[in-house]
Amino acid sequence: MERVGFIGIGLMGSGMARNLVAAGHDVVVWNRTRSKAEAVAGATVADSPADVAASAGVVMICVSDTPDVRAVVEGDDGLLAGASEGLLIVDHSTISPSATVELASRCAERGVAWVDAPVSGGPEGAERGTLSVMVGGDPADVERARRYMDAYSGAIVHIGPVGSGQVVKLVNQVLVVINQLASSEALLLAQAAGVDLEATLRAVEGGAAGSWMLSNRGPQMIERDWRPGFTIDLQQKDLRLVLDMADELGVALPGTALVFQLYRTLQRRGLGGEGNHALVKALEELNGIRLGD
Amino acid sequence: MERVGFIGIGLMGSGMARNLVAAGHDVVVWNRTRSKAEAVAGATVADSPADVAASAGVVMICVSDTPDVRAVVEGDDGLLAGASEGLLIVDHSTISPSATVELASRCAERGVAWVDAPVSGGPEGAERGTLSVMVGGDPADVERARRYMDAYSGAIVHIGPVGSGQVVKLVNQVLVVINQLASSEALLLAQAAGVDLEATLRAVEGGAAGSWMLSNRGPQMIERDWRPGFTIDLQQKDLRLVLDMADELGVALPGTALVFQLYRTLQRRGLGGEGNHALVKALEELNGIRLGD
Repeated sequence: MERVGFIGIGLMGSGMARNLVAAGHDVVVWNRTRSKAEAVAGATVADSPADVAASAGVVMICVSDTPDVRAVVEGDDGLLAGASEGLLIVDHSTISPSATVELASRCAERGVAWVDAPVSGGPEGAERGTLSVMVGGDPADVERARRYMDAYSGAIVHIGPVGSGQVVKLVNQVLVVINQLASSEALLLAQAAGVDLEATLRAVEGGAAGSWMLSNRGPQMIERDWRPGFTIDLQQKDLRLVLDMADELGVALPGTALVFQLYRTLQRRGLGGEGNHALVKALEELNGIRLGD
Repeated sequence: MERVGFIGIGLMGSGMARNLVAAGHDVVVWNRTRSKAEAVAGATVADSPADVAASAGVVMICVSDTPDVRAVVEGDDGLLAGASEGLLIVDHSTISPSATVELASRCAERGVAWVDAPVSGGPEGAERGTLSVMVGGDPADVERARRYMDAYSGAIVHIGPVGSGQVVKLVNQVLVVINQLASSEALLLAQAAGVDLEATLRAVEGGAAGSWMLSNRGPQMIERDWRPGFTIDLQQKDLRLVLDMADELGVALPGTALVFQLYRTLQRRGLGGEGNHALVKALEELNGIRLGD
């Protein structure tokens, strides 16, 4: 096994890096705020992404958005500044598919391989090592990456060439938010009609109306528990990537666009830190109705 | 056990009436087209709903829409024309919740009880006796109805007073169609981006993006198999009930309204007999993209 680097020790990255160490890998980490990197027991802390690239054969990235990945890869002390031919970069961030293809192509000119591997499953999944990973890249690169990703993944699905992992992650987010819209309109209608919300949920969730969102976030919505599994601010960042991609492709997605606008009203009200199931609050505000009243 | 009547021997009613006979009940049936009633082996065929009411203690109705139920109950030869005090009417049709409350109230003046009990599970569920039933009515009436409904039901959930079964059925339909919109936009985006649709489905269906619609109709959409589990025309009839109820309650449901408009374009193109998952064809037409191309 090669030495493995990990860039971005945030909510997700800390669990993933810890699981790499626990699986017996030789791990070198870097984070903008150094103290978070130092908190990964058993890992070496590097001074820059360039240093990570100089000492590792494979480097994972898990940061927030497209500009962050660009900075980590192409910045002054970025990965490419320290990389030798044969380095493999595995990007676990959720970023633009077209930017991914562009970055991978510039890396390829330097003999550096790229695998895009956005994840779902949240911080709990990272800590338990049960993340779902949607992967784009050349088959040999994906197999090489899999030996390390196994340390924190439950399911690794190879979709196709570089960029296709990011595409599927964005497709995933379209489903998540529109299923959330369905749960919101359904519970709002039930509330307006005065039926018992828990009995309603129980009656419909097992059939053709069922979804992960309804069964997992519906009870939270009924109890007005807005603690985030995934925040509205992060959801909007991903929806912006969806709508940018749809714009590049010239595709109209009316439902997704509607949800983006509704989340925008919640951000404006200062609710961006609440869970994405607080979408129902936008419909509550429009209608002057509150679940549970 | 009392003699049980069954009005409406259509796609759903034929399976339900057969299961009543199979469970050993004494069954009397009526249908507008008499030959369909005669096809229920072991049941007595009546000449009118009034005749059914005169000879049975409990009468099930399973017809298409609100005006059909009104005609069966209040028409010249309707149930009320033959009913004695103590009759129980169980309405398995999906109709207007407010019309349900109104009909139940007029029946109550005559000493006739009403239970609204719309079903989900389709003709297969009726035939196999595994329907899900969402029930509104007084507890004693619901318990009396349950002894008969058990012959064709998998799950019977008592929601609350008369009308609440219809409300929950409409809430169910909101979930069904918006989850279908989610599947449609997601697969369309994947198609536009050129990723493999089956790999995409496999990668996302098990997580937070999952829904019954995606797992059951997604593969049909990818194969362009538009055979109906539930037709667009029937879906529109139910969505009209949803939007009428929302209008009566003064509630805005932007996602549901969007889906109603999209289905309208498919009906206009003569596709009302296709399955509700053909919703994606409206987005295909808008975007000039076809799944599977």
